[in-house]
Amino acid sequence: MSTYTAPTKDMAFLLHEVLNAETADIPGYDEMSPDFTGAVLDEANKIARDVLAPLNRVGDEEGCSLENGVVRTPTGFKAAFDQMREGGWTGLDCDPEFGGQGMPYLLGTAVGEMFVSSNMAFNMYQGLTHGAYSAIHAHGSDEQKATYLPKMVTCDWTGTMNLTEPHCGTDLGLLRSKAEPQGDGTYKITGTKIFISAGDNDLADNVIHLVLARISGAPEGVKGISLFIVPKYLVGKDGSVGAANGVSVGALEEKMGIHGNATCVMNFDGAVGTLLGEENKGLRAMFTMMNEARIGVGLQGYAQAEAAYQAAVEYARERLQGRAASGVVNPDGPADPLIVHPDIRRTLMDQKSFTEGARALTFWGAQLIDRAHRNDDKEALGLISLLTPVIKGFQTDKGFEACVQAQQVFGGHGYIEEHGMSQFVRDARITMIYEGANGVQALDLVGRKLAADGGKPLMGFFEMVKAYIKQHEADAELKESLLDPLMAASRDLQAAAVYFMENGMKNPDAALAGSTDFLHMFGHVVLGYMWARMGVAARTALESGTGDAAFYKTKLTTGRYYAERQLPATKMHLARILSGSETVMALDPEEF
Amino acid sequence: MSTYTAPTKDMAFLLHEVLNAETADIPGYDEMSPDFTGAVLDEANKIARDVLAPLNRVGDEEGCSLENGVVRTPTGFKAAFDQMREGGWTGLDCDPEFGGQGMPYLLGTAVGEMFVSSNMAFNMYQGLTHGAYSAIHAHGSDEQKATYLPKMVTCDWTGTMNLTEPHCGTDLGLLRSKAEPQGDGTYKITGTKIFISAGDNDLADNVIHLVLARISGAPEGVKGISLFIVPKYLVGKDGSVGAANGVSVGALEEKMGIHGNATCVMNFDGAVGTLLGEENKGLRAMFTMMNEARIGVGLQGYAQAEAAYQAAVEYARERLQGRAASGVVNPDGPADPLIVHPDIRRTLMDQKSFTEGARALTFWGAQLIDRAHRNDDKEALGLISLLTPVIKGFQTDKGFEACVQAQQVFGGHGYIEEHGMSQFVRDARITMIYEGANGVQALDLVGRKLAADGGKPLMGFFEMVKAYIKQHEADAELKESLLDPLMAASRDLQAAAVYFMENGMKNPDAALAGSTDFLHMFGHVVLGYMWARMGVAARTALESGTGDAAFYKTKLTTGRYYAERQLPATKMHLARILSGSETVMALDPEEF
Repeated sequence: MSTYTAPTKDMAFLLHEVLNAETADIPGYDEMSPDFTGAVLDEANKIARDVLAPLNRVGDEEGCSLENGVVRTPTGFKAAFDQMREGGWTGLDCDPEFGGQGMPYLLGTAVGEMFVSSNMAFNMYQGLTHGAYSAIHAHGSDEQKATYLPKMVTCDWTGTMNLTEPHCGTDLGLLRSKAEPQGDGTYKITGTKIFISAGDNDLADNVIHLVLARISGAPEGVKGISLFIVPKYLVGKDGSVGAANGVSVGALEEKMGIHGNATCVMNFDGAVGTLLGEENKGLRAMFTMMNEARIGVGLQGYAQAEAAYQAAVEYARERLQGRAASGVVNPDGPADPLIVHPDIRRTLMDQKSFTEGARALTFWGAQLIDRAHRNDDKEALGLISLLTPVIKGFQTDKGFEACVQAQQVFGGHGYIEEHGMSQFVRDARITMIYEGANGVQALDLVGRKLAADGGKPLMGFFEMVKAYIKQHEADAELKESLLDPLMAASRDLQAAAVYFMENGMKNPDAALAGSTDFLHMFGHVVLGYMWARMGVAARTALESGTGDAAFYKTKLTTGRYYAERQLPATKMHLARILSGSETVMALDPEEF
Repeated sequence: MSTYTAPTKDMAFLLHEVLNAETADIPGYDEMSPDFTGAVLDEANKIARDVLAPLNRVGDEEGCSLENGVVRTPTGFKAAFDQMREGGWTGLDCDPEFGGQGMPYLLGTAVGEMFVSSNMAFNMYQGLTHGAYSAIHAHGSDEQKATYLPKMVTCDWTGTMNLTEPHCGTDLGLLRSKAEPQGDGTYKITGTKIFISAGDNDLADNVIHLVLARISGAPEGVKGISLFIVPKYLVGKDGSVGAANGVSVGALEEKMGIHGNATCVMNFDGAVGTLLGEENKGLRAMFTMMNEARIGVGLQGYAQAEAAYQAAVEYARERLQGRAASGVVNPDGPADPLIVHPDIRRTLMDQKSFTEGARALTFWGAQLIDRAHRNDDKEALGLISLLTPVIKGFQTDKGFEACVQAQQVFGGHGYIEEHGMSQFVRDARITMIYEGANGVQALDLVGRKLAADGGKPLMGFFEMVKAYIKQHEADAELKESLLDPLMAASRDLQAAAVYFMENGMKNPDAALAGSTDFLHMFGHVVLGYMWARMGVAARTALESGTGDAAFYKTKLTTGRYYAERQLPATKMHLARILSGSETVMALDPEEF
């Protein structure tokens, strides 16, 4: 059985030495002293390590069951969920007006990573609730907010996103669920939704479904879709939970992983709902949830990798097998530990350099979101909008790869369920699919985000990277180890963007055939940039002689590893992109 | 539910137009006329498609169970196994002296691919038997051969490989199982083995275990290991099955996939066995099995990818989602099929170009084995020995990746078990681990095979590729599309080999830190070479105007795709290798 301990030291380094939270000039950030964040992270670590992690395998083995129409979650989930609620963890970064603690999203992200690493399936119940909370907070009427938000902040009521139907997921324009106006401001919703995570549960007193449907007579396609709040149990004017609404769980899906979360077929049969936001503008409201969810899924990607990596390191230190090629290191034992072998170290360094880089990117992304919301900063909003598909797509592709690598360290012991490595792989696999499959992220990046706002966010990103390199290149070691490789990778990315601009207008396929490669290049460049920032912070600390020198040296080595071993991927991706779409599009469908 | 149809056309192309089986001047190959092989492949396809494929999901869902010490295989396995035996499929390429049909290993490989694609877990029962057959055939006494081989050729008795123990897999020098000589030519074997595939079953009348153990007083380490034949039931002089031997199944492992195959903990408690081959030379005899098994596992890698790819293509043709960027193709439908989207085509082309390339490599490898055995050709033996870790490691890493890509085409529908895509991924995952984890394959390649026989096989490979390019470069289209990219990739591989030679002697870690990258580069180069050979065959056929022009044009497009989109990976791998081992080896174990 693997154990998990939150990387609080790395988190503190990011919050205070890389992102300089306390002095970042964002409302609310002035409270983020190292003492304060340290106390929060330590408490969250206790929950993650002692309460959630021990339930992870239980959730996988037992899964959820449907009993008389009600979902039963695995043994121990209810008690743990209550503990989360009672500790106030569910409303950490929610609006104090509705009972939240009003902390920055950045701090919520750090805490969230721990909960996801220790038990991803469990954390989805509150993660989905947070998404639904955000959508209602952004688009709800005062009455809707007053009715739903206080209960959702505490997770007395959980939330869901009901988008997908059997015949459509990505292409929401095809959706068929109907909403009939009742003349009293409410609607009756009818339709079937599938793949609804946390669709029902026995953890909360009510489930608040956000449901996409078409009001009768609405235009076809995505322009006729509205979003509705549809509670499992009707809610009285006084906030009391009343009679059952016309909502039922049709079935639980049997799936590859995240067994602890109930993936439901939901049937809406004349269920009463209220409109959230404007008629036919449902996609807009839905994307408030979706953008948050995409960052959250990008976090799941590296958070699963972190947990798997911790287990792999522990195994590699303990398992004795073979002798070091450069000289025996454990002469008194029958063999040396796995960790002496260069190929084992290579794979551990791949995992470590990815996971720490992705954590830095995700935390920075969370800070950009805080800046966008709390400072109403349009530039920050443009940048995080550009980065969202990269965070989601790159971090989940690579996070899954990292879990597979961690499993591989265990050899045959990784393939059996006993050590939990199979579960990390099976759980992480969904992150590449849900909230927009990664091919859709690539399409979003290349088809929408590159040209958004006249290309300003993209140009701004390149300028920022260039300026950062210029600012720090006097440091010869940093220049050689981190900044020069970053500059080369960034140039490759720019060359790809130029190719898309020059060819995409006359032949969209030329750009789209390279979209996934572009997303991966972008991921490498932005992780290279985060490693540069971490490198600068580590050098600064080493020069000042404060703190744990070994920690900072390890950071510099890990960053150099990323630059040497991962950034060269941009050349490969660029070559693929420049090959265009001819061979991609050549075959007839029957010739595949 | 996915369906499977064997790619018999592609197989015939390889056998007769690329490998020129009938005229290859290998004893037994003269019978391999297109009519003959066509008939065999068609019959095998019927079994694979109609008998084995429908049992694939059954095997996954039911798994095996242990009842009163006996393994029960899933519903339908016994009847299917009997059908395989009665059709003579189990002894296709076995020695006629022992009841086999004596066909080339090449043809057995083509047939084997179908059985693995349609039901990998099922096929392992006979696959392991074949490996044990080969080891007894190569190293057994006349009496052992007469006793065991006829029954193993027909799979009346199945076979196993008992290597791994709880504390050692890769490092067999640590193994502890004991063999006590009884003075009558037999030994009593005692010890525990784990991860024993097909360790027991209810398909056969007896199970013949090949077991590694130490004879009392033998030297420590790998020099004191011997191989024993240990039957589940003792065999009388007349070949009759007698009393139970001291062999029992301790437990079945709960694992990520291949649920239809029984992965057993085997307990040997004074079980009677006979020595196979010489005392303390067990590893040599074991490697007869192991080398065959490694090629077989490399085949599993792409065979699973083939089955998953077929399902993905079918889904991409039928599932309507979104509209083509370059113009609507299905105006009467609500949306266009997935296959119009460039990113979906990219992933399908990745899968197709890998799978067809790997099939070509595996078939060529099988022909080299036939040449080595039937013509006693040392050069062929040296080459296949060099290529074995590449076939095993590269094809299983990439085969797994391809299964993940195929699953991704299904979006959320790929994550639920219903469509069978999760099973392909879960089943394929083991191929990267068993018969030597892929890191061990990379170590074998770089640490042993590169320098084997003074480096002759490696130099021979490079010369062969160069000569092939020279022979065909007058064809400008071939040169530009396939030969030039192959030459560039081959040069990268040579540069890496030179780096290893120059640095590996003084610092073995410098070579070992790049071993997996080298294995992948090698895989790309040899697949590039196979694509060149397929390209030449396709051009020849097109010029002669015979056959199906669309098939050959598709081949050329697919080969060009591989050259454009996959071969550029060698630059990335080379850059990683040239970065050496400094950052790989820098951290203390506690700093991970």
